Amino acid sequence: MAPKVLIVGRIVWAHEDVQNLLGDITEVVYLDSKNRREFLAAFQPGGKYSDVVGIYRENGSAEILGVFDKEIIDGLSPSVKWIAHNGAGYDPVDVHACIARGIYLSNTPGAVDDATATTALYLLISTLRQYAIAERSLRAGQWKPTGLSTKTHDITGRTLAILGLGGIGLRFAELARAFPMRIIYHSRRKVEDAPEWAEYFENVEEMLAQTDVLSLHVPLRAETVGLVGEKWIRALKPGAIIINTARGKVIDEEAMIRALEDGHVSTADRWSSRGRKADTPRFRQLASVGLDVFPNEPEVNPRLLEFPNITLLPHMGTENQDSQRKMEVRALQNLRDYFTTGVGKDLVIEWKNAKKPNL
Amino acid sequence: MAPKVLIVGRIVWAHEDVQNLLGDITEVVYLDSKNRREFLAAFQPGGKYSDVVGIYRENGSAEILGVFDKEIIDGLSPSVKWIAHNGAGYDPVDVHACIARGIYLSNTPGAVDDATATTALYLLISTLRQYAIAERSLRAGQWKPTGLSTKTHDITGRTLAILGLGGIGLRFAELARAFPMRIIYHSRRKVEDAPEWAEYFENVEEMLAQTDVLSLHVPLRAETVGLVGEKWIRALKPGAIIINTARGKVIDEEAMIRALEDGHVSTADRWSSRGRKADTPRFRQLASVGLDVFPNEPEVNPRLLEFPNITLLPHMGTENQDSQRKMEVRALQNLRDYFTTGVGKDLVIEWKNAKKPNL
Repeated sequence: MAPKVLIVGRIVWAHEDVQNLLGDITEVVYLDSKNRREFLAAFQPGGKYSDVVGIYRENGSAEILGVFDKEIIDGLSPSVKWIAHNGAGYDPVDVHACIARGIYLSNTPGAVDDATATTALYLLISTLRQYAIAERSLRAGQWKPTGLSTKTHDITGRTLAILGLGGIGLRFAELARAFPMRIIYHSRRKVEDAPEWAEYFENVEEMLAQTDVLSLHVPLRAETVGLVGEKWIRALKPGAIIINTARGKVIDEEAMIRALEDGHVSTADRWSSRGRKADTPRFRQLASVGLDVFPNEPEVNPRLLEFPNITLLPHMGTENQDSQRKMEVRALQNLRDYFTTGVGKDLVIEWKNAKKPNL
Repeated sequence: MAPKVLIVGRIVWAHEDVQNLLGDITEVVYLDSKNRREFLAAFQPGGKYSDVVGIYRENGSAEILGVFDKEIIDGLSPSVKWIAHNGAGYDPVDVHACIARGIYLSNTPGAVDDATATTALYLLISTLRQYAIAERSLRAGQWKPTGLSTKTHDITGRTLAILGLGGIGLRFAELARAFPMRIIYHSRRKVEDAPEWAEYFENVEEMLAQTDVLSLHVPLRAETVGLVGEKWIRALKPGAIIINTARGKVIDEEAMIRALEDGHVSTADRWSSRGRKADTPRFRQLASVGLDVFPNEPEVNPRLLEFPNITLLPHMGTENQDSQRKMEVRALQNLRDYFTTGVGKDLVIEWKNAKKPNL
């Protein structure tokens, strides 16, 4: 009898791939539980999911089940061996509960690098050139806001600091390098195969003091909650910009808002050739932020909306059909690899560190 | 007696450079005419500008004088030999009138390549990923518009067509190449020193049939008004996008609006894994446009504001202090070069083609 795979959440683009990748070796069933209680009941002995071995999980399922927290993981039947999460960030699944239960967990790392790095590049341009406010001004019938050029810069020649040089961070660095920007980075350790033009800083604060734009590419874990807090934000060069396409909780939002509110450190008065005074704001503590992620999505702190000079996107990082299809296929491929070779390529790092998987 | 240079328009960032570049070899005077009539009167024999030899011109002067049309050029005194226009596009100066009068005209080509190409890159990402509508949705308190991923694509792997592979077009091609995109182009003739990865199409319509994103980088001249019209727009691959950071009048705006209004060519119904119908718009004739320029700036055709899926910027191409300073310095440098070597580096192409300058 073929092992059973349960599809939890949406498959929009890779519908045919489900059959191609899993149809010959597994029996594929689709979630039809209406809520968490029903879902957990079905994993009890004799329940219809009690013999499920592999689970495909996609974030849309949270509307019905909530995230895969400890209660869900602990409620799965002993038959469950592999959860293939669709997404690079797997914080909606309690990895420690998985490890305790011996359930392997994979994500879809490479599949989202390109789309997320592109989002970071967009936020970089939008904030350095102040295009969000320019677009709103035009659509409000007011053409160009005055004085924008005094607050805006070319991308070329600025210094981009990458916090976490994983797949997405490296991909973003490559795109920014095209201008070129100077690329500096901090990771838990120096990345062995990093390109020679990416300068490693062991000391974060030394890096921040040289940073025009700081871009965050660390996963959300207990130890990264509020990682970018008061101290690091104040260590940034005045007038710097923070870009976040990782997870909202990685930044201490209150500290960030304070630094945006602090306004000008100093005002340099310039005089134009005609003797008119051009008001040149020198620097805010933070000149701007570009955010694709927020601590409590889909809620957005209303205080953020009061800043006209920041760019806010509703978590569009991977929101396009090409990337979403890649992610769906990659998650399914992890299940296929588990059933055919005993291990999926994208077993998450906590599992790799926990022990050599017993496969 | 030092030859006289007249500064017409703003110098904001390069104020000190005026003295450094021109102070030792010319007498610099600043425009104080209140209108066109006063300006032209001052160039009459005995008038205070009647011995001006060099003119620095910046677009802000149009508020007082209007553009440098034939009336202005013909009204300048015979002493005027060089007009250094601050900007890559010199359509606000009547070059043919200049040639007829023997007045040399320079622009600031290289100085704006980077900033304008960056604007094109922003519009490329914004339109392919539909970020303009996403930003407005968030700021309206509605988080993410539904179904956006069905209309959006990765940049990587798409085909970018450059119309006019000059400095800006080439710079944009280099930035887009980083993803990579496939780069194709059409210019009046094959560009000899174009990179080998840029494919030349002699036939525009053959190029358009393969185009996902068409980006315009041709100057505004009599022969480029309405260049991108009905025929070319309909020759584009359905679902294509047009980006314009050149000049609004290069596109036939009415034809573009019709192609945006034409809506879906066909609708492919897809079925999700759960049997729900996912409405997948296949293609509009034009999926989107990204415009930084308009035919009658600062006016924007109100019909454009009715399209939620297009990105509109109020001519921000070079709107940042780094680029604006570069442009100011470059224009001043052309005057210095004229006075010290007899010719400025950026003499415009019409002059070069008209005859070997008699210098």
